[in-house]
Amino acid sequence: MSEIRKDIVTGEWTIIAVERGKRPHDFKKNQAYGTQKDCPFCPGNEHQTPPEVLAYRDVDVNPNEEKWNVRVVPNKYAAVKEKKVVETIRGFYETITGYGVHEVLIDTPLHESTGGQFSTTQIELILKAIKERYMEIAKNEKIKYIQVFKNQGADAGATLQHSHWQIIGVPLLPDKQRHILDGCKRYYQHHQKCVYCEMLRYEQDSTLRIIDKNDLFICFAPYASRFCYETWIMPKQHLFDYGHLSEQHITSLAQIIKRLLVRYEKVFDDISYNICFMGSPQENMIDKYFHWHIQILPRLTNIAGFELSTGCYINPSPPELVAETLRKVDIDEL
Amino acid sequence: MSEIRKDIVTGEWTIIAVERGKRPHDFKKNQAYGTQKDCPFCPGNEHQTPPEVLAYRDVDVNPNEEKWNVRVVPNKYAAVKEKKVVETIRGFYETITGYGVHEVLIDTPLHESTGGQFSTTQIELILKAIKERYMEIAKNEKIKYIQVFKNQGADAGATLQHSHWQIIGVPLLPDKQRHILDGCKRYYQHHQKCVYCEMLRYEQDSTLRIIDKNDLFICFAPYASRFCYETWIMPKQHLFDYGHLSEQHITSLAQIIKRLLVRYEKVFDDISYNICFMGSPQENMIDKYFHWHIQILPRLTNIAGFELSTGCYINPSPPELVAETLRKVDIDEL
Repeated sequence: MSEIRKDIVTGEWTIIAVERGKRPHDFKKNQAYGTQKDCPFCPGNEHQTPPEVLAYRDVDVNPNEEKWNVRVVPNKYAAVKEKKVVETIRGFYETITGYGVHEVLIDTPLHESTGGQFSTTQIELILKAIKERYMEIAKNEKIKYIQVFKNQGADAGATLQHSHWQIIGVPLLPDKQRHILDGCKRYYQHHQKCVYCEMLRYEQDSTLRIIDKNDLFICFAPYASRFCYETWIMPKQHLFDYGHLSEQHITSLAQIIKRLLVRYEKVFDDISYNICFMGSPQENMIDKYFHWHIQILPRLTNIAGFELSTGCYINPSPPELVAETLRKVDIDEL
Repeated sequence: MSEIRKDIVTGEWTIIAVERGKRPHDFKKNQAYGTQKDCPFCPGNEHQTPPEVLAYRDVDVNPNEEKWNVRVVPNKYAAVKEKKVVETIRGFYETITGYGVHEVLIDTPLHESTGGQFSTTQIELILKAIKERYMEIAKNEKIKYIQVFKNQGADAGATLQHSHWQIIGVPLLPDKQRHILDGCKRYYQHHQKCVYCEMLRYEQDSTLRIIDKNDLFICFAPYASRFCYETWIMPKQHLFDYGHLSEQHITSLAQIIKRLLVRYEKVFDDISYNICFMGSPQENMIDKYFHWHIQILPRLTNIAGFELSTGCYINPSPPELVAETLRKVDIDEL
């Protein structure tokens, strides 16, 4: 069973996975993280996951057999999976049943492959699969927000080494997305412009924090970077939704992601990071003021007490230095 | 040099410690974290820190000599340390100079001591020092908020093993504190009551999430716990500010902290956690609607992409189970 509980003061929601019910001995460190033996995401072990909801194969075999390039399955240990959205007041707290969708996108059949080793074609397939699942889940009107993200490496919260993404659809708009949308709306009301379009214009003029660009996308280190070596990838064009990416967008985005991940892997050994698709729910006028983008958050230092108690980050790597360092990496062979 | 930069969309602030300017090779893992040799916080190495601003000693020696029980020094690598508060608009971004105070409170002369091993008397001294520094820093009207916190263990962001706290005063109200104050105000306006007083009343009636209590404090697992085994310690009485703790409060608080840390250390080997003093700035009517408390956030799992992109946590340990587990720990010898 899972519940979504609201902090009555801050309004922040927490998903409490009641049925997981982790007890102290479940928190042993380094549990089988890297072992390939019996990895549920490796080809040949398809029976260890729930039946797939999507897979791309070059050959014509049955579902849940091998020979796939990308495979999406329901998460066996779903954080949200209740059948109904029921809101209750318990004493003086608010709770929603843990309704939702939680899927795993296994983005390579190779157990030890890291993002920078993926071919651009493989990244295109991954983006295509993300788009397809996003569009499918978005049909469910009870899902108010869909988060697509990747945890790469144990320091970034991955519990299995085999590379994968997660897609979580929840029956509410998370706090962070509410703040982002409020900020976008406020800017739009004052300036009749998209705040991210203006940011891109400013960054391209200044060039200080730009790392890479191609025909359709820009990669840069954001001005108020919270994480050491944080980068954002943003479409040049004002696009509010990644569910409507064209084939041309996917090709161009795959190329810029590949180049960025190679840069990271050349600069840092065994880097852990999160990739977060900053999407948006369907809302009135959202196409005017929201601009979707991707945030890549390296996990080079641990989040500490100051950040957790204030929400304010301390970052010892100025984004101007980060951009210069990543820009200079030799990626000519790509 | 340090700057505080605002995310133009979310309004979140990041402290960019420009002069630290960490380059890729600075992020090597396990750098000298646990080595006692030349530990700047050990007795005998007082010259390795800036001169102390406060120390408690049983014997009469000169400042910055040995024989201290608790010692507070300016942080040698301060995140904020500029001399003036200057707000600027840079192109289209807002920035404040990194004005502020950043101190380290070395809470034991013993290099390897952990919180649960401290005597209650030692914890009383620590609380007294926190109160003294807090009251001193609060006199500076340019400091709008003071955060007191402890990072225990590398997983909680500690970069030195020798136990210590940090005190950071910043020239702005962080985003998280703004949300907390807004929530408290909203509740007060609707109910003419403090939301935390009502929470305590409800929790004491239900008893499900209560871990411990004494004459003046209650320790419980919060209803919407974000972290596995998260606990809060709150004064029973409506107190808005820990700067005004009486001696009786300090004795009682030290006792309940000691008992909690022993419980954690009996349940988990080598546990990492953050202790966050959730204080408040001086604001009109704050004494009516705010109620200070302490949040203890164990770091048993890593914060991952879902949490970072949505602000919504997934917690596999229901607080009811956590309270039961911690309550049952045998601490009779204390």
